[in-house]
Amino acid sequence: MQHAHDEKHFTAGEAVRDIVIGMSDGLTVPFALAAGLTGAISQTRLIVTAGFAEIAAGSIAVGLGGYLAARSDAEHYQHEQRREEEEIIAIPEAEAQEVRDIFRTYGISPAECETVVESLRKRPKDWVSFMMRFELGLEAPSPGRAWKSALTIAGAYVVGGFIPLSAYLVRQDAQAALRLSVVVTLASLAVFGGVKGRFTGVPVLRGALQTTVIGGLAAAAAFGIARWIG
Amino acid sequence: MQHAHDEKHFTAGEAVRDIVIGMSDGLTVPFALAAGLTGAISQTRLIVTAGFAEIAAGSIAVGLGGYLAARSDAEHYQHEQRREEEEIIAIPEAEAQEVRDIFRTYGISPAECETVVESLRKRPKDWVSFMMRFELGLEAPSPGRAWKSALTIAGAYVVGGFIPLSAYLVRQDAQAALRLSVVVTLASLAVFGGVKGRFTGVPVLRGALQTTVIGGLAAAAAFGIARWIG
Repeated sequence: MQHAHDEKHFTAGEAVRDIVIGMSDGLTVPFALAAGLTGAISQTRLIVTAGFAEIAAGSIAVGLGGYLAARSDAEHYQHEQRREEEEIIAIPEAEAQEVRDIFRTYGISPAECETVVESLRKRPKDWVSFMMRFELGLEAPSPGRAWKSALTIAGAYVVGGFIPLSAYLVRQDAQAALRLSVVVTLASLAVFGGVKGRFTGVPVLRGALQTTVIGGLAAAAAFGIARWIG
Repeated sequence: MQHAHDEKHFTAGEAVRDIVIGMSDGLTVPFALAAGLTGAISQTRLIVTAGFAEIAAGSIAVGLGGYLAARSDAEHYQHEQRREEEEIIAIPEAEAQEVRDIFRTYGISPAECETVVESLRKRPKDWVSFMMRFELGLEAPSPGRAWKSALTIAGAYVVGGFIPLSAYLVRQDAQAALRLSVVVTLASLAVFGGVKGRFTGVPVLRGALQTTVIGGLAAAAAFGIARWIG
């Protein structure tokens, strides 16, 4: 039943989510930075240097940010779990009342849910699991998730960032490199947005359009700012 | 009760979460990029140009990314809600069985939860809300959240990004600017990490250490890469 239900309500898995996070930023920010610098300077070598420095900085910041977020979720879960374990021993009446309050928000009377409350009171472990999910809306985090998440996000960022910069490696003239980079990156953003849409339930064309517009806007803003300062 | 419970299990509000997302990246990536470029080039003007181009690109990418994530959450919720509404009309027996299956995972027998199942069947609206939260683990998104989220994240990114770059505006010599930028930014990262810890339940000192180490690592990596290429 659980399996059939997973298929019915399909949503992105954790790894897909991490790849999407890393690649969205990786395709967009180094692209926009390189495009922006082309508005101010003409040496492709400097643009490439700045681009790779950005990929290093961005992938570490986003990857370690993902690591901390996943670890802090796991710690938050454990912290709240201990608290619930203590509370159902220390103040069982108050916790039983909380169960009734949860049901009341769905129009279920104390009398109607009494058998459920009594059943939970017999099994402290199930009771804690019930409170974690139904009172706090928290899901048990998968072990080892934090590092896997960090590496997936950072790796996707690096892969995404290489695409716009590759144009500056094959073209010596900065303007020509920019034109090639715009074509290659906007096409990649469209493909990425479409594939991402498949996983997140957004229509393919709209997904493609969204990521392309974001990348284009970011690049145009960076170009404008760099030209204005540079 | 809901209010007392919110106080007991305090976690970051949505606005705080958005500020944390924007400022983590804003303090880290432009800082690391500027530090990295100082390893390769000596004109502060170019470093400032690249830094502001990065702030423009990064704030738009991260802000619009937040907008899309919030909107896609809202759409996902509505989509699943419609599906549940249809299912409790089309296949009520199967949906009632799903309610029993949810309770069974907490060791509650079909007999024990029958009064709850019957109560929900009388009120389709409550039944749908129950399935959204208890079967799918989804919470109703707040309206207007997507734009507010985008602007908060982008604004925090810009504010964070100005801090490391300000050193390059007051010092003409790139190496001197880098030293000032490192001091000012690592101090800001420590303060930010400590304050963030207060909101997310991480001990203040550990929070301060975490963000400072991430920022430092990202900057060191960018510096190394830029010097190697440049």
